[in-house]
Amino acid sequence: MKSYKDLSPSLRTIMTPGPVEVDPRVLRAMSYPILGQFDPEFTELMNETMEMLRDVFQTKNQWSFPIDGTSRSGIEAVLVSVIEPGDKVLVPIYGRFGNLLVEIAERCGAEVVILEREWGTVFGPEEIIAAIHREKPSIVAIVHGETSTGCIQPLDGIGAACREIDALLVVDAVATIGGVSLQTDDWQLDAVIGGTQKCLSVPSGMSPITYNERVEAKVLKRKTIERGLREKGSAVADGKPVASNYFDLGQLQDYWSPKRLNHHTESTSMLYALREGLRLVLQEGLEQRYDRHKHHEAALVAGLEAMGLTLYGNPDCKLPVVTCIRIPNGIDGESVRAMLLNSFGIEIASSFGPLKGQIWRIGTMGFSCNQKNVLHVLGALEAVLLWHDAAISSGKALQAALTVYARKEEERPC
Amino acid sequence: MKSYKDLSPSLRTIMTPGPVEVDPRVLRAMSYPILGQFDPEFTELMNETMEMLRDVFQTKNQWSFPIDGTSRSGIEAVLVSVIEPGDKVLVPIYGRFGNLLVEIAERCGAEVVILEREWGTVFGPEEIIAAIHREKPSIVAIVHGETSTGCIQPLDGIGAACREIDALLVVDAVATIGGVSLQTDDWQLDAVIGGTQKCLSVPSGMSPITYNERVEAKVLKRKTIERGLREKGSAVADGKPVASNYFDLGQLQDYWSPKRLNHHTESTSMLYALREGLRLVLQEGLEQRYDRHKHHEAALVAGLEAMGLTLYGNPDCKLPVVTCIRIPNGIDGESVRAMLLNSFGIEIASSFGPLKGQIWRIGTMGFSCNQKNVLHVLGALEAVLLWHDAAISSGKALQAALTVYARKEEERPC
Repeated sequence: MKSYKDLSPSLRTIMTPGPVEVDPRVLRAMSYPILGQFDPEFTELMNETMEMLRDVFQTKNQWSFPIDGTSRSGIEAVLVSVIEPGDKVLVPIYGRFGNLLVEIAERCGAEVVILEREWGTVFGPEEIIAAIHREKPSIVAIVHGETSTGCIQPLDGIGAACREIDALLVVDAVATIGGVSLQTDDWQLDAVIGGTQKCLSVPSGMSPITYNERVEAKVLKRKTIERGLREKGSAVADGKPVASNYFDLGQLQDYWSPKRLNHHTESTSMLYALREGLRLVLQEGLEQRYDRHKHHEAALVAGLEAMGLTLYGNPDCKLPVVTCIRIPNGIDGESVRAMLLNSFGIEIASSFGPLKGQIWRIGTMGFSCNQKNVLHVLGALEAVLLWHDAAISSGKALQAALTVYARKEEERPC
Repeated sequence: MKSYKDLSPSLRTIMTPGPVEVDPRVLRAMSYPILGQFDPEFTELMNETMEMLRDVFQTKNQWSFPIDGTSRSGIEAVLVSVIEPGDKVLVPIYGRFGNLLVEIAERCGAEVVILEREWGTVFGPEEIIAAIHREKPSIVAIVHGETSTGCIQPLDGIGAACREIDALLVVDAVATIGGVSLQTDDWQLDAVIGGTQKCLSVPSGMSPITYNERVEAKVLKRKTIERGLREKGSAVADGKPVASNYFDLGQLQDYWSPKRLNHHTESTSMLYALREGLRLVLQEGLEQRYDRHKHHEAALVAGLEAMGLTLYGNPDCKLPVVTCIRIPNGIDGESVRAMLLNSFGIEIASSFGPLKGQIWRIGTMGFSCNQKNVLHVLGALEAVLLWHDAAISSGKALQAALTVYARKEEERPC
C-alpha cells in the first residue's frame, strides 16, 4: 500500500483576500480534545459564540450563529430559507460575488431583477433605493465588500427603503466582518452573512450569520419539524417547506435554541476555532481592529505606488482590506505570483472573470494584516518585478511604507 | 465588555454513536498553519485525500472527495444533485435516518415511495429487490448502519437489482465507514456518503462522498458553470439546474479536478484532519480495523449482559459499532446518563422518536473503541445502576468483558 507522508505544510505569508493566516491561538483551540454536541460544557461554548457574534455583527439579534460550511453555505442558508419560489429578488451586481447571489437566488426559484455596475465601481445608494421603489422586490441581496474588485458598497439608507416596501435586506459581509465597520442594527440589515477565513482569521469551514425577527417571521411560516423527530400531532409546515434540510433556518434555530432539537452534529473543532477567533477580535476591540486594517492598507498602498504600480478601481470606494493592482503591460502576472510563492513563500491572488490576467489582488486581513507581512510583500514584489522588467522603478517601496508606519507610530503604538 | 475564559474543555470518555474521541494525531494536524486553497502543496493534499478515500470506500471511483459540512451535507449534496423534481425515489426506512433520507428527497421535489420496517429490525434484501421491480424508481436511497436503532442493513443484491431497471443506488454509510465492511464497487453502490465523526474519528464538519460514472452522467446533464465564472459563449445548463449551488456536484467536480475551478474555499484545517484520519485508518488496515470494532463490541456486550441488562433490537442485524440497551423498568435513563457524565466523565447517548426514554445507545467507534474505554464504561454503568436500583446484579460486568479480552489475546495481540 502507498504510504503517505506526515503532514508538514510550509509556512506561508498569505496575502490573499482569503483564506488568510490563522492566529496560533486559534490553531491551538482546534487541537483540544472534542466534547459531545449535547455536553453542557459544549452547549455553553455554543451560547458564548452566539453572544460574541452579536457583538461582532453589532446587533441584538437573538439568531446569530454559524452555519457549518464555508462562506457560501451561509449565503445559501439565508437565501433558501427566505426566498419562496416566485419571490422577486433585487440584486445589485458590481463584481463576482453579486453574480453568486444571483445564481443562488435563481436556484431558489426567485424572479431575479439585476442592477449592474461596471466592475471597479459601486452604486450610489440612491440608485439602489430608486430601484427598490420601482421594482418592489420581496428581498434585496447585496455584497458589502467585493473581494473580486476590491470595492466596498455603502449601505446607508438601503435598509430604510426596504422597510418602506416591506422587503428584506440580505447582506453578504463575508469579506468585511471583523475588518471593516459593519452595523447590522443601525443600518437596518435584516440578515447578514460573514466569513471566517478572511478578517476573522479563522480557517474556512464555518459561516456566521445573523438575522432579525423580520426574517424569523418568514422562516417560521415555512417551518417543518424533521420527519424522524416529529412528536405525534406536532405541526407540520403551513407554508411552503424550505427546499433544503441542511440549510433550513427553522430547524437550525431549534438546534441553537435551548430546545437543542437535534439537527446536524455541530462541527466541534471549528466551533472551538470560531469562539477563539471571536474572542481575539473582541479583545482587540472592533474600532481598534478596523483602524489596524486601514493603517496597514495605507502603508501597502504607499509602497505599491512608490514602486510605480497603478491601483485598480475607483479609490472613493476602495475596500480597505483588499488592494487590487493593475498588472503592468508586458508582465506575466502568473509568473510573478509563482516567483513570489517559490522564492519568498508569499501568496497573493489572481482574479476572476473579466479581470482574469488584468489585476493582482493583495489582502490585508485579520492576522495576516501586520507590518512584517506588508513590508515583506512589498520588498518581494519589487524584487520580482525588477527581475521581470527593469522598467519598474526600484528601491522606493519599503521607504514609502516605512514613512506611513513612522507617521502612525507618533499617533499610537503599532 | 464581558470577558470570556480561555478554552479548556474537560477530557471526556465519549461512548456515543458520534461524535467520538479524536486521535491526538488528528487534533495535531488541525493545529498546523494553513495553506491557501490553490497552493500546490494544498492541492496535493486534496489529491492524496481523494486517493485515500477511494481505498476506504473500496472503490475505483474518480469522484471521491469530502463535502464541506457535517454528514447530512453529503447526503443532501448527492440527493439534490441526482434527484430531478418528479423523480421517483424509493426509501426503505428502519430508523430515524431513513426518515431523514425521505425528508431530504421530498425537499428535492421527489415522489417518494416508502417501505417501512419496525425499528430494531432490517429488511431482507429480497423485500427491497421486490419493491425495486414493482415501483421502478429512478433512485433508491437507503441507510447502511442506523445509529438510531443499532441495526445494519445487508445490501447484497440491491445494487444489481437497481442496474436492471437503470436506477441509482445511494447509500448513507455515515455510521459504518471505517468501522464496518463497506464495498462500494463490489456491492454496486452508485453513490456512498460517509461521516467523519464516527468510525473515522475525525471531528464533525466534513462528509466524504464517492460516486461512479452512472451518477456523474446524471450530474453532467444538469451542469451549469457559476454565473461569475462563465467564459463568453461557454455552455449553460442543458438539463434542469440543481436547486443548490453549494451542493452542486457538477461544480464541486470541477473544483476537485485538475481544473480547480473556484467554488467554495476548501476548509483547510478540516482537510488536514480528514487526511490524517484516513492515513491512520489505512495504516491500521481496513480488515484489522473492522476486527477491532467487533472485538470490543463483544467485550461490551458480554459485560452488559453479565450486568443483567437486555439489548434492544434483533441480534441478527446488530450494528457492531452501536449497542442499544433497554433502560430497565423504574430507572430514569437521563439520571443515569447525567451521573455517568458528572461522576465518571463518560458520555453515552439517549435516543430519538419512538425510542425516546426507552433505550441507551453506546458507541464503540474509531478512536473511542478501545479496551480502556469499554472497561471504564462497564464499571461506571454498573456502579451507577447499583446506585439507582439495587435490583441490578453486581460485580460481573468487568469479569465478563475481561474474559472476552483474555480469549482474544490468545489469538492476536490486542
